[in-house]
Amino acid sequence: MILLDGRTLSEQIKSEITKEVKKEFLDKGKPAPHLAAVLVGEDPASQTYVANKEKSCREVGFTSSVYRYPENFTEKNLLEVVDFLNKDGDVDGFIVQLPLPKHINEHKIIERINPLKDVDGFHPVNVGRMMLNLPSFLPATPFGIMTLLERYHIETEGKHVVVLGRSNIVGTPISLMLSRKAKNANATVTLCHSYTPDIKKYTLDADILIVAMGKLGIVTADMVKKDAVVVDVGMHRIPAGDTKSGFRLKGDVVFDEVSKKCSAITPVPGGVGLMTIVSLLLNTLKASKKEIK
Amino acid sequence: MILLDGRTLSEQIKSEITKEVKKEFLDKGKPAPHLAAVLVGEDPASQTYVANKEKSCREVGFTSSVYRYPENFTEKNLLEVVDFLNKDGDVDGFIVQLPLPKHINEHKIIERINPLKDVDGFHPVNVGRMMLNLPSFLPATPFGIMTLLERYHIETEGKHVVVLGRSNIVGTPISLMLSRKAKNANATVTLCHSYTPDIKKYTLDADILIVAMGKLGIVTADMVKKDAVVVDVGMHRIPAGDTKSGFRLKGDVVFDEVSKKCSAITPVPGGVGLMTIVSLLLNTLKASKKEIK
Repeated sequence: MILLDGRTLSEQIKSEITKEVKKEFLDKGKPAPHLAAVLVGEDPASQTYVANKEKSCREVGFTSSVYRYPENFTEKNLLEVVDFLNKDGDVDGFIVQLPLPKHINEHKIIERINPLKDVDGFHPVNVGRMMLNLPSFLPATPFGIMTLLERYHIETEGKHVVVLGRSNIVGTPISLMLSRKAKNANATVTLCHSYTPDIKKYTLDADILIVAMGKLGIVTADMVKKDAVVVDVGMHRIPAGDTKSGFRLKGDVVFDEVSKKCSAITPVPGGVGLMTIVSLLLNTLKASKKEIK
Repeated sequence: MILLDGRTLSEQIKSEITKEVKKEFLDKGKPAPHLAAVLVGEDPASQTYVANKEKSCREVGFTSSVYRYPENFTEKNLLEVVDFLNKDGDVDGFIVQLPLPKHINEHKIIERINPLKDVDGFHPVNVGRMMLNLPSFLPATPFGIMTLLERYHIETEGKHVVVLGRSNIVGTPISLMLSRKAKNANATVTLCHSYTPDIKKYTLDADILIVAMGKLGIVTADMVKKDAVVVDVGMHRIPAGDTKSGFRLKGDVVFDEVSKKCSAITPVPGGVGLMTIVSLLLNTLKASKKEIK
C-alpha cells in the first residue's frame, strides 16, 4: 500500500516554487508574486485557513497581504474592495475567503473578481473554461488532487473514477477534470451524491475513489474494491484529550481498515488538505507570470 | 414502449411560445423577440441549420436576421460583428454558427459574445454558471433533452444515467445538468467516452442512456438494460435511393432492435434534433424577457 503523502509532496512543490521565485523574480529584480486575501468576520476556521496561507506565502518568498473587515461589512463595501484589488497592479491574485456573512451574496462577489486574478478558480469564467478544457485557474482542492495523482504516477486513463459528493468546489470540478480529454485525465467518471440510492454499488467498482461527502468515516473497507486508489477529502475535528490541540483530524474514510485493502490512499491529516494551499500558490505563480489570458 | 416524440413536443412548445409572443409582446405593443445568426462561409450543414432557425423563428412570431459573410472573412472583422450585435438594442440574442473557418479562433469569438445575449449557451460564463447551478443560458441540445425528459415525466432522481460522449456541446453539459441538485435532475451520472475500455459494462447498468458518440448504430440491444430510457443524439445521413432527398437520417442507436427492449426511446429523425431548435427559441425568449442577469 502506497501512502499518498501530501505532506512530503507539498513540501517538495513549495521548494520548487521557492527556487522559481528566486530565479525568475527576485534575481531578475522583479517583485515577488503577491497573493492577497480578503477576510470578512471572525469565523475561526477561516482565520486559521488565511493564517496558513500567509505562512505558506512567506515560506516560498511570495508577498502576502490580508484585508480584514468586521462581520457587519456591507456587500457594497466588499464590492469596492474587490474593484480595488482588481485594479491594484501590485496584487497578482487574490481570494475572498468563504463563507461570507449571510447578508452578502457570495456569487455576486465572486463574479466581480477579475478572472485573471481569481486564483481560487471560483469565477464562472474559470469554471466554464475548465469544463471547456481551456487554460484556466483550477479550484485549489481538485487541482491538488490532480497534482497528487500525477506526481504519484497514478494511471487515470480508462480507469473508472467514482466521486462521492457534488460540491461546486470539490466533487463536481474533480469529476470534470478527470473526465477531460487530457494527459493525466481521460477517466470514466461517475458522480454520486446524496440522491444516489446505493453508493456501495458504485464504490465497489471504482478503480479510483474520491470521497468528498463531508461525512465522518462514511467509507468503510467493505465499500472499496481491492487495490483501488482512495483519495479522502474529508476533514473532521474529533475531540481528543490526549492531543495538545484538544482534537484529532479524521476523514470521510475509515483509514485503518480501508488502507489494508487499497493500493494507495491519502491520509487525513497529511493528504489532500496540504495540497490545497500548494495549489493556491501554484495559481498565484501562474497569475504573476500572466500564463492565463 | 413510449416514443419520446420530439416532433409533437416541439410543435406543442412552439405553439406555447407563439401564444406568449402574442400576449406578452405584440398585444402590449412591444417588439417581438429577435434572434440573429452569424454565418461565415458556405458549409452546407450550417446553411441548412440556419435556414431551419429562420423558419422556426417565423413560425413563433420572432424577428430573425442572418448576417452572412464569405469564407475568407477575417477574425478581426468577425469580432467587430460580434461587438456590433452585443450593442444592438434591437437584437435580444444571437448565435455565431459553428464550425467557423479554420483561420478563426472559435473560442475567441465565443468569449467576445455578451453572455446576456449568448443564446447558444457556449460562453464560459454561461457554462460556468450552469455547473454552479446558477441561472444561465443552457446549450440547446442538452436543454432540449432535459425538456424532453421533463415533459414525458421521465423520473431522473436517483437514477443511473450513463452518457456516451463528452463533447462540450452535448455529452459534458448533459452529464452536469442531470447531476445537479435540482428538480428533474439529481441523477447519478457516469460519463463515458473514447477512452472508456468497456462501454457495455456501463450501458448495461443505465436506467437512462444518453448516446452522443457521433457513431452510426453503435448502441445495439445487447448493450441496453431492459426497460431503460434511451436518448439518441446521433444524426447520420445515409444515402438512400428510395427517398426524395436521396438520404435517410439514422442515429447512434440501432432503433429497430433497441426500441423492443427499452421503456422509452427518441427516434431519429423526430427526436432530439427538433428539440434543439426549440431550446434556442426558449433561450431567445428568456433573453428578450431579461430573465438571466
